[in-house]
This record gives sequence, structure tokens and C-alpha cells, in this order.
Amino acid sequence: MDYVYGPGRNHLFVPGPVNIPEQVIRAMNRNNEDYRSPAVPAMTKNLLEDVKKIFKTTTGTPFLIPTTGTGAWESALTNTLSPGDRIVSFLIGQFSLLWIDQQQRLNFNVDVIESEWGQGANLEVLAAKLAADSAHTIKAICIVHNETATGVTNNLATVRKLLDEYRHPALFLVDGVSSICALDFRMDEWGIDVALTGSQKALSLPTGMGIVCASTKALEASKTAKSVRVFFDWKDYLKFYKMGTFWPYTPSIQLLYGLRTALDLIFEEGLDNVIARHSRLAKATRLAVEAWGLKNCTQKEEWYSDTVTAVVVPPYIDSSEIVRRGWKRYNLSLGLGLNKVAGKVFRIGHLGNLNELQLLGCLAGVEMILKDVGYPVKLGSGVAAACAYLQNTIPMIPSRI
Amino acid sequence: MDYVYGPGRNHLFVPGPVNIPEQVIRAMNRNNEDYRSPAVPAMTKNLLEDVKKIFKTTTGTPFLIPTTGTGAWESALTNTLSPGDRIVSFLIGQFSLLWIDQQQRLNFNVDVIESEWGQGANLEVLAAKLAADSAHTIKAICIVHNETATGVTNNLATVRKLLDEYRHPALFLVDGVSSICALDFRMDEWGIDVALTGSQKALSLPTGMGIVCASTKALEASKTAKSVRVFFDWKDYLKFYKMGTFWPYTPSIQLLYGLRTALDLIFEEGLDNVIARHSRLAKATRLAVEAWGLKNCTQKEEWYSDTVTAVVVPPYIDSSEIVRRGWKRYNLSLGLGLNKVAGKVFRIGHLGNLNELQLLGCLAGVEMILKDVGYPVKLGSGVAAACAYLQNTIPMIPSRI
Amino acid sequence: MDYVYGPGRNHLFVPGPVNIPEQVIRAMNRNNEDYRSPAVPAMTKNLLEDVKKIFKTTTGTPFLIPTTGTGAWESALTNTLSPGDRIVSFLIGQFSLLWIDQQQRLNFNVDVIESEWGQGANLEVLAAKLAADSAHTIKAICIVHNETATGVTNNLATVRKLLDEYRHPALFLVDGVSSICALDFRMDEWGIDVALTGSQKALSLPTGMGIVCASTKALEASKTAKSVRVFFDWKDYLKFYKMGTFWPYTPSIQLLYGLRTALDLIFEEGLDNVIARHSRLAKATRLAVEAWGLKNCTQKEEWYSDTVTAVVVPPYIDSSEIVRRGWKRYNLSLGLGLNKVAGKVFRIGHLGNLNELQLLGCLAGVEMILKDVGYPVKLGSGVAAACAYLQNTIPMIPSRI
Amino acid sequence: MDYVYGPGRNHLFVPGPVNIPEQVIRAMNRNNEDYRSPAVPAMTKNLLEDVKKIFKTTTGTPFLIPTTGTGAWESALTNTLSPGDRIVSFLIGQFSLLWIDQQQRLNFNVDVIESEWGQGANLEVLAAKLAADSAHTIKAICIVHNETATGVTNNLATVRKLLDEYRHPALFLVDGVSSICALDFRMDEWGIDVALTGSQKALSLPTGMGIVCASTKALEASKTAKSVRVFFDWKDYLKFYKMGTFWPYTPSIQLLYGLRTALDLIFEEGLDNVIARHSRLAKATRLAVEAWGLKNCTQKEEWYSDTVTAVVVPPYIDSSEIVRRGWKRYNLSLGLGLNKVAGKVFRIGHLGNLNELQLLGCLAGVEMILKDVGYPVKLGSGVAAACAYLQNTIPMIPSRI
Repeated sequence: MDYVYGPGRNHLFVPGPVNIPEQVIRAMNRNNEDYRSPAVPAMTKNLLEDVKKIFKTTTGTPFLIPTTGTGAWESALTNTLSPGDRIVSFLIGQFSLLWIDQQQRLNFNVDVIESEWGQGANLEVLAAKLAADSAHTIKAICIVHNETATGVTNNLATVRKLLDEYRHPALFLVDGVSSICALDFRMDEWGIDVALTGSQKALSLPTGMGIVCASTKALEASKTAKSVRVFFDWKDYLKFYKMGTFWPYTPSIQLLYGLRTALDLIFEEGLDNVIARHSRLAKATRLAVEAWGLKNCTQKEEWYSDTVTAVVVPPYIDSSEIVRRGWKRYNLSLGLGLNKVAGKVFRIGHLGNLNELQLLGCLAGVEMILKDVGYPVKLGSGVAAACAYLQNTIPMIPSRI
Repeated sequence: MDYVYGPGRNHLFVPGPVNIPEQVIRAMNRNNEDYRSPAVPAMTKNLLEDVKKIFKTTTGTPFLIPTTGTGAWESALTNTLSPGDRIVSFLIGQFSLLWIDQQQRLNFNVDVIESEWGQGANLEVLAAKLAADSAHTIKAICIVHNETATGVTNNLATVRKLLDEYRHPALFLVDGVSSICALDFRMDEWGIDVALTGSQKALSLPTGMGIVCASTKALEASKTAKSVRVFFDWKDYLKFYKMGTFWPYTPSIQLLYGLRTALDLIFEEGLDNVIARHSRLAKATRLAVEAWGLKNCTQKEEWYSDTVTAVVVPPYIDSSEIVRRGWKRYNLSLGLGLNKVAGKVFRIGHLGNLNELQLLGCLAGVEMILKDVGYPVKLGSGVAAACAYLQNTIPMIPSRI
Repeated sequence: MDYVYGPGRNHLFVPGPVNIPEQVIRAMNRNNEDYRSPAVPAMTKNLLEDVKKIFKTTTGTPFLIPTTGTGAWESALTNTLSPGDRIVSFLIGQFSLLWIDQQQRLNFNVDVIESEWGQGANLEVLAAKLAADSAHTIKAICIVHNETATGVTNNLATVRKLLDEYRHPALFLVDGVSSICALDFRMDEWGIDVALTGSQKALSLPTGMGIVCASTKALEASKTAKSVRVFFDWKDYLKFYKMGTFWPYTPSIQLLYGLRTALDLIFEEGLDNVIARHSRLAKATRLAVEAWGLKNCTQKEEWYSDTVTAVVVPPYIDSSEIVRRGWKRYNLSLGLGLNKVAGKVFRIGHLGNLNELQLLGCLAGVEMILKDVGYPVKLGSGVAAACAYLQNTIPMIPSRI
Repeated sequence: MDYVYGPGRNHLFVPGPVNIPEQVIRAMNRNNEDYRSPAVPAMTKNLLEDVKKIFKTTTGTPFLIPTTGTGAWESALTNTLSPGDRIVSFLIGQFSLLWIDQQQRLNFNVDVIESEWGQGANLEVLAAKLAADSAHTIKAICIVHNETATGVTNNLATVRKLLDEYRHPALFLVDGVSSICALDFRMDEWGIDVALTGSQKALSLPTGMGIVCASTKALEASKTAKSVRVFFDWKDYLKFYKMGTFWPYTPSIQLLYGLRTALDLIFEEGLDNVIARHSRLAKATRLAVEAWGLKNCTQKEEWYSDTVTAVVVPPYIDSSEIVRRGWKRYNLSLGLGLNKVAGKVFRIGHLGNLNELQLLGCLAGVEMILKDVGYPVKLGSGVAAACAYLQNTIPMIPSRI
């Protein structure tokens, strides 16, 4: 018996790990296999080819690493940089903070551009730094595409534009953990050198696979990067890719089959339709927040995230209590406010294999919780606003027409 | 690939088969076993003991039959009655109609008491028939506790009261398919002789197990009942019960483990809490229907069903189109109107292992569909009405306090 | 925790229920679905078409009934015959005995042709009866293709030949429970009128689906057959086939998806290869039995069954003790001797989705058990004999060449 | 459809990943969960307490890291040592070689003690080095308990005895990847400072969890160790342990539930019984090898591994062909010979949740393959030898007596 039993389905609206589609749960329901049999390399080859599509790259080289997003970060940094290298990094929330902490502990010389939490990366400061760096001391720009803690999406196209404008050769390293497969992401077009995500985010898999994709330039950099690494070293992967056996150490067979199905589902729906769905769900959520009379933690529309919405609560309410009540009374899992915004915001994750009615159930739940904790919400108001938008925009399910 | 793929979870709100809890899906995820090993009888013994609790009987004898509700009906009838026997049966909707059809085809002399669809069993006519039957020609009263087609719940306590009042020895046979484990049901207290349900209803299992419970009087009747039967014959079960091997033919091992877990979940929540939850969800649904300005197919409050609500649509709308759009656009499965009410009602099933936010997602979906098909609903109105009630009544989840 | 835990896999060698392939377990690992959605009829249509292939019929009409083999028997009989009809039935073991018991309880006039257990159906007596029946009082011949209790396979082609020879119009009803999908079975070629099997046998599914296939002649007979039936009545199925919704009552969604995968696996391997594999495994088993110095319960080679081998133990050994030890010490499930051969034989089921090394593990286990119970077996002897044959005959796995 | 379909179960006898028990597959068959809910920390706390039992430690601190064995190695080294530190490491096969490669790439000063492949660690050389190191320049002894490539088990008790004898303070780091939960392992008694294993080995889980256990001394060392690390840094874990939330980054919920069940199964069987079972299966395998007239790659009995047997083939046979045929013809997965012994040995893994009949099926398969490739094996000989031993030693299954 699960000692946390509650009737019905858990409503999982943390911004990861997200709901796993039944098809993927099914695909992973299997015994181990010998990964040195002829079957696994054949499967891996196809996976590596197909996974490139979610990065929108044809020239990148993907690595499926048995790790989490934190490990994927480390893989991106240590393979391309040497201790002491100057990197520019944006601090805009808890996850960019943690990445910067990692960068510093890995002994890089981190030039932090800080914004208020709720704002996006300050690209004007970046421009200034690039302009001033004719010596090219900046070796890499590190940016979190979507800051999960505040629901802020940064503009990667502009970063690329600035790099081009200043003809700056810095590597462009992007944390796409809560963006890839959900937000518009164009590795090749935007000249991204390393992009990475984790299996438990928009891919809707269990945790355990860090997916890192390296540009030709990043691969080149890895040949001379002096950061100490073994487990995360791309070299070992590349050696086994060449041999056609693909795995320097044991992969999770279950996650490989899970990834196969996750990609199949995404391609069946169409990656652009998946992205449009995320946009639709996010817009509906924001309309609900507005109807409730609450503020989005994200300060400007240009930064609005389509995968997570951080909702600011009035000062007389502790947002942690909202999350606690969700769990205890409604079988609803919401995201806590983290660090600087702890107690001040709660977060609604709306990413992964999710549909409109699931979201509306969550929004109805949030309304009741808000009332529970003393906020004078008009019950039904957020759902009404969301429905008004969704009813006009939801497409027919193509396979059912 | 499922060719009916749609993003996110299917919202299953037909009045059966219903959502299976993840715990039960997990418990059934297994290989076959030898049902003649010592393990299966031991498990079966416990199951038979525990399953009696959902009928609220201590003296009944349960049978777990590899069949559906239709087969459970046949088991109830053929084991207790002989061809030509006069039985009184109530026709109030599609499922009572089908049972009556079966009764007639099994060659019983069926005395049908018909009500308008949307009304409950006419117990006044029953009273008159009982009063007139001092010769005790009526061998059985057959009644569907909850008519799934119209969302009508009949008053079983009154039936018993009438039988007692007229000291009538007729057997009391009850179809509890969409009631047992969800509505107040008291086999012993109400002197029910055969009660039955199907696994895919409030027990929240897959289809495939008809659960029939017989009183001592029904078992006695089975010794002389002349209806031809083999597969459904209780005698074979009783013989194997006596031997301690329990199964006259092969049971589904998976359903046995599923039933074990389903019962464990119900006992963990508490059967009375389960029934209260059904009442709460049903009330919320009815409040939404009212807020939409639509009518419940059930004509009087005393007959309101806590497991299914049949909603009457305006004459200019085809209710089948509502169900179709639910499937095609919202990944929502609603129940069609059947037979006399085809095109006129759609049905929301709210039974089984289900919680409030799941229901609210469904209600939001229904609102959008209503707008889609041209009904001037105020979006959010039904959800608001439901939330106003639920926010006051949902208890904390005991295991999470 | 399973209270019957033993380390490693259970070795399931009863002649049903048999091992379910991982692919099928996976396919069935799913929530319920609305069987009235457009998806389920589309899937059912394909299933009905494909399931005909395992009967080798193009003109038959299949029914997928939520029941067991016992129910499938009843479906075959009650749809084609009327009470009092004379039928000829062969009693050669426990399962033919049970079918005859059913036939008698269904009020047919059963003309039993009995053989010693371990022998096949006495077709000479049948010939005599057919010859004598110029009045065509015999309405049906009922025969169990493979008697699971003794491991005896009857010759269906000869039955047809006799019927043709005597131009006898009797219906030809065949229990193919432990034969279809494993033994050579040709419904159309042999002019079988009703053939039936159960899901938990060679199809390697869980229990719960009785699969019955009716010839045109059988369908015609069902129009006038007077046996009382409702749940098993083909008429209801045919009505829903015509409407294109297919199901008169709720099917198990899980079993439908399971059947889909089971058929896919059989077609992938090739039905003839599946049958050849059964023949190979059976031959290997018989060679082992011979090497152990034990006797096959089946008295002549012409009756040897390719799905189950009943092994006769010396009089000083109780075969039930062999089965008990298999369970208690080796995690091996063998079949008990039933009724007349209880204590005298144990049975090795070798049907379904099974391969050579699985069987060899079982045979090694049997050798150790034989030694345990005091039989002077030479350890390794049976495995050696089986291997000598198998090593010469096992084909490469086509998908792995 | 799996494009590598073969009938029946795959016989998985590589020394990892190993067969997952059905109970564990079932436990992992679930949706994601919010790991910041109150439920996951509570569960984690119990897991951390219970996992210590498989190390036989009461004072160690375990870390459940989302990584593989390779990552667990890195965690052990970088948390306890500083670049340039002198460590003594034993090279006796492919996995010790890979660990040494990692040690060198992490910039330790590795003092390699090499043995011929097939021999154990040369502890005499270690003794000499310890004797000579009165300055305590040796900071750690790194040893693979069980070398999976050659089937060699090293004597850890002797290593401890030597360290004690020379009162040497070096850390004692042990790779227990193919030993823990299968071989006798006593972290506290043997004064091991870091012990580690991977989920896909004797724990019988999917790949993806590196389990590392640190002694108090190792934790102390981690405070001053200067190796650069972030993902593998114990500090972050310890910080979250203190806070009671346990996870510095997202764990795999599925693996946590899987580990829970895997431990439950081990405790149900009894860890000592599990170890005895491994010993029994290994002995049976070695007897079979002997009966086949083949040599064990392991040169002395004192080094025989109870989890994997590497079998030397005659020079005229390519051992890779044996593995290939196992896969292509018998659905049997054996381990290849690696590096120096490629083509010369094949490996039979006999670890994890495995029983005797499974092993015997494998041994029968190996016999047929040997004959296939031209080795004059007497079919049945190995199985006979194994059975003779097993039939005398297999205990009754306690839960079934």
C-alpha cells in the first residue's frame, strides 16, 4: 500500500518531473537486456539520429548520459572549457544560480550578470561586455533558456545576434532543461554550441537521462579543454560511437525504450504542434492568474514562460501553505517558491505530455486553495478566463478526425 | 503507436468502465500463475471474505465469476428461479430493459412495472401487486439499484419494507452494477437475496469479473431452481469452496491480484468515505448542470444518482455530437444517451477511484463543448458552482495529514 | 510482498494458464477505455479478421466472449443445439469428461464413446454409429482435439472423413482449448462447425476470453437452436457486428490489446513456425521421459500431444508429491494428475510462447525432483536426450540473423 | 513490435544488467511524483537506513546517485582524494583497468600492481609497498572486489589485515559492483572506507543508480579532498540530508520504488541466504564447466567468483561466436570476453534474482552452443554435474513450506 494514498489520480503540476504518458510507462515496463547484443546499438543509432530533431539540429552530436540535468550541466562545461576560463553567466533565479555555483566550483572565472528575480537575462550588459572584449577573453556565454524558478524565458536569438554582431567567438552554452521539446528551440539556427535537457522535463520520461547536444565547434573545443572529467567525458562516447557499440558504460535499457516512445509520440503530434500546445496551455494559465487578480512573477510579457508560471501571492499569504494544501487536500502537486521567492510565489508547471482539461482541473484546484488560505478569489473566474481562450483555440486531435 | 493518440491523459467519464488506479494497474502487471498451487486458494479465501464487506453482508456467499454484468445477471436469475416463474421487474431505462429482455429470454414470466425514463421504480404498483398476491405467485422482485442510462437510483429499503409489510417471501434480486462500492448498499439490512456488480464499475478494475453475492435463502433456492445452467451454476463453485481449491474453472490471476488491491484501496480510504466522496462528486456535478441552465434527466431529487448524471440537452442540440466532440477535441469520454434518450441526453459518469480535480477538468470540458455546439453557456459557471460546494466539503486526505 | 516469494522466475509448466510474453504483459498495462469510442470498434474489426487465421478459416465467424473455456463450450453447444438433441461425445480424460457433464446438464442426449484414459477417441465406434444413423438422429459430434489431462491428440481429419464418407450432416464441434495456435488445426479444410479456445492457453494471454468460431452451417443452426441462452447467445453479437459497434456488453479493453499483441507475435514468428516449435519442444520432452525410463500416459504415438505430456510415475511414487516438490523447492509449476490418473501421472505443459532453454530448465528440474522422491533417475539423462534432438533442429531466430 | 523478437523469454546471463524480478518491474511501473512532497523524503530516509544492511555497515553513510558504476567510482575517488595523491590499485582485468584509467585521468598518482588476467590481486606486492611506506605516501588502496571480466574475487579481509598489520592509514576503497548483495561483504568488519555498487547488478534493478557508502573516515577525508567535483560531491547530499529533503537534484522516483522492493525481496529471502544461493549457483556452474572439459579463466580456487564464471575455450574456437550463437539461435545472452581475453573466454553471469532451473536452462544452452561451434562436448554432461550438486543442496523455499 502506498502510505500516501489519496483517491484518484495525482495532479502533477510541478515543473518537473512531469506526467509520463501511459504509452511511455508501458514501453518501460520491461526486463533488462544485454546492451552488447546487436539490438541495442541498432536502436541507439536511430535514437541518436531522432533526438537531434528536438534540438532542431542536423550537425550536432547528441549524448544520452545516465545522469540528471545537473550532470548535463557539468558535461557541457567540463568538455568545452578549461579551469580559469572566463565565462559570462546570467543570474536570474534559482536554477541559473545553481549552474553558476557549479561553474564556480569547477574553477571557471565566472562573470555574473545578475537581474532581479522575475526579469530575464540582461542582454544589454552582455552586449557591453562583448563590445569591450576585443581580446576575446570570454570563452563562453552560459544561459538558462527558461528559468524554472521564476518562469522566465530568455531570448536566445538575441544572444546569437549579439555574438555575431561583435564577431565574438565565445561558445554559446544553453540550459534547455525546461524548454527543449516545449518552447521554440533552434540549435543550428541560433548557433548554440551546447544544448542540454533532462528526461523528466518536456520529454515526459522518468528522471535519469541527461541529453546533451554539441555543435562541431563544441566538439572541437573538447579536444583541448583541460577540465578534469571522466564520467562526463564526451571522448569515451565518441570512441564507442565510432566502434558502433555506442555505450562506454551501461545505459538504462528502460529509458532507451522510453525515449523511443517519447520521441514517437512527439513526432506523431508534430514538434511544432507540441510547442503550440505548450503556448496555448501557458496563455490559459496566465489568463487565469490575471482573472484571480494575482501577479505573474515574470515582470514583462517578453519573458513569459510557456512551461511554468510562477504566481506571486499577496504578502499576507505564505505560498508554501498553498503547495501544502494542494497535496493534503486536493491531490494536487504544485511547485514551491525557491530561495529568494520562497513563500512568495507558487509555481504551476504546464509542460510535457499534458492537455487542456488536465490543466483546467489544476486551475480549479488552485482557486479552491486560494480561497482556503484566505485570498478573496471569485471561484470559477480563472477557469472561465482560461476556457474562453481555450475554447477558441484548441485544435481537433488529428488522429481522431 | 496507438492510432487514437491524443496528448495527455484521456479523461474517462463514461459510467464504466472507469479509471483504474495506478496501484491496481501495477498489481495486475504480471505473468500467469498456476491457480492450483497452494498460493491461489489462500489468496482466494481472503478475497471472498473481504469482498463481502462491499456488499455489507456477513451471511452472504460471494462468487467471483469470469464474466461481465450481463453474465452476473444470468447467474442471479438461473440459480434461483425456474422457467415460468413469475417475477416482478421494473423498466426505467436501458439497463433495466436489457435485464428484462434477459429475464424473458430465460423463460420467466415477467411482470413489468414500467416508469417514464427519468423516473424511479414505481413502488406503489409494486405494493399493489404484493398486496394482491396472497398466493405468493411472485417468486422474485428484480430491481436495478442504479439505472445507469438515466442516472436514477431506486430505494431498496422501501422494497424491503414492502416485502416485509406484506410478509411476502419473494426473492429480492438486485443489480448493483453501478451502485455497489459507490452508493449506500446494505445487503443484510435490506434482506437482499442476490446482489451483483461488475469489476469495471465502482471497484475500478478492468472488465471481466462478475461479482455475485447470494443470501442463505438464495442458496437454498438454488437447490431446487430448474433453470438450465452450467457455466453460471453456483453448485460447481460451492463444491470447490468445500474442497478448498475454490475454482471450478480457471480464474484470471491478474484480476484476483487487481481485486486484492482494489479492496485494499477501498478499505484504506474507508468504504463510508468512498461513498461520501461519490455523493460529493455527484452533488458538485448536479450544481454545475444547474448553473449551465440544463436539466437533469432524473425527474426528482429522491432518485438522483451519485454515480452518473444524465444531462438533458435542448431540443436543437444532438447530444451525440457532444460526446463526439469530447472525444475528438478534448480527449474527454462522456456517455452517450441510449435508446429512448439517444440524442437527448449525455451522461457524466462520476464513479470509481476519482477525485474532485479530475471531475472539475471534465466539467470545464463539458462547458467548452456546450459552447462548441451552440448552447449559450456562461463559461466557468458550472465549475464555479461545483467549486463553491466542494471547497466547503472536501476533507483532508487522511494519510497526508 | 508476495507471500509465496521464491527467488528468480517461476517456471510455469502447467498446461495453462501459460507464460505471457513480456510484450503482451506490456500491451495490457493500461487504463480502461470507453469501448463505445470510435477506436475500439475499429480495433475489434481487425482483431476479428485476424483471429480467423489461427483457426485457418476464411468463412468462419469468430466471437470473443468474456468467459473461460467452460463458457466457450456452453456457447458452442447452446447456440447450435436444442434440448434432447442426440450428440456423440468422446470420453477420454478429465476435460472431455467435464464437457460431457456440461452436455448432459444442458439436457442433450449424449451418446458417449469412452476410451481408456491415455487412448484417443475411438473413431471406429464413431464410424459404426454414423453408419447406423441413416435417420440422422445424431445432431453433433463433440470432440476435444487435445485432451489436456492425458496428453492425447485426436485426429480431426479422420472425423471429417467419416462424416463425409457417411454423408452425415451432424455438426462437428471441436474443443481446441489446448490445441489451437499450437497444433495443426484447419477449421475450413476439416469442415469444423464450431471451434473454440481460451485466451490463457497457446495464445499466451491471461484467462478471460473464450474464442469461439462458427461455420456458416453453425450460424444457420443457431437460428433454430432452442437451447436457452442469453449471455452466450451469438445473436446479440451478430446484431452488434451488423451495427459496427461489435460489443453487446463490455469487453476487457486490456484483453483486446493483449490479443492484438499476441496475434502480432504469432504472425511475426509465423503460425506454421509456432506449430513446428511446439512439435520440437514436445518431441524433446518425450525423449527426456524415455531417457528417464518413464512411460508416457499416451498409449500410442499417433495420439502424442505436442502441447502437454502426461508422465506416468512408478506405483511406489505419488505424482502429487512431484508437483508439490516442484513448487516448494524448485519454483517449478507442473500439472497434477486429475481424477482417474490422480497420483499416477504428472503433466508437463509445453505450449504457448516458450522456448527450448525454458523447457530444458524444467526438464532438469523434473530430474532432480524424481531423485528427490526416490526414483532412480540418472541426472542429466533427460536433458541430454532432449539436447541431442534440439541441437539438430532448432532454427536460427529469423529476426536476429 | 520488438524487431529482435524471439519466442519465449530471453535468457539473460550477462554479468549485468541482470534479470529484474517481476515484483520490481511492477513496483517501477508508475508515473512520476513530486520529489519535494512529504512522501519522498520519508521513503528516502527508510531506504538510506535499509541500504546500509547490504553493505553490512551501521556507521557508513550511503549515497544513492543517479549514475552508473563508472560514476560511482568517480564519486568514491574525487570525494576522498586530491590530485597527485598516490594510490595503489590492482590491475587484474578489464574493469580494474577501466577504474585505473579513470584514476589516472583524474590526476592521481597511481601505483599499479598488475597480475595476469585470471589471477587475483597480488597482495604480497601490496604488503611490500605498505611495509616500505612508513611515510604514508599511499593515500588509498583501490581494489575491485570481484573482477567481472575474469570472474576473480579478491580477498578484502586480507587487505584490511595488511593495512592493520602495517598500521597504515590509507583509505580502503572498494568497487563492489559485481559483489555487493551477492558475495560476502562486510564494510564495517573489514574497515572499508568507500564501497560502491550499481543498481543493475546483484540488486537486480535497471541501470541508473550508483550506490556509494562512505565510512566516517571517508566523510572526514571529503572535507579536505581537493579533487574538483560538483555532480558527484557528497557535500550537497549531506546538506540536503541535514535539511531532511535528501535530494540535491531530482532522483528517479521509479528507481526509489524499485530499490524499496529489491531490498524487501532480499530481506524476505535473507541476505545470507541470498549469498548462499549465489555460492550454490556458482559452484554448479563450475562443476558444469569441469564436466565439459573446459577451463575456468580464474586460475585458483581461492579467487573463484560466485557471481560470474569466465570459461576458456579451446584455441580453435572464437568465444565471440559462442555469444553470437546464444543470441541468434537460443535466445541466450552470454558475456563476451573483453580486451586481453576477447575471443578466448565467454562469461556466464549468475548473479541477482536468479534460481537453479534458470541456470540449468542456460547450461543446457551452452552445451548445445559448444556442440554447434565444433567443441566435442557430451550433451547433458554439464547439466548432470550441476544437478548432482544442486539436488543435494537446494533448500526448500521458506515461504512455501
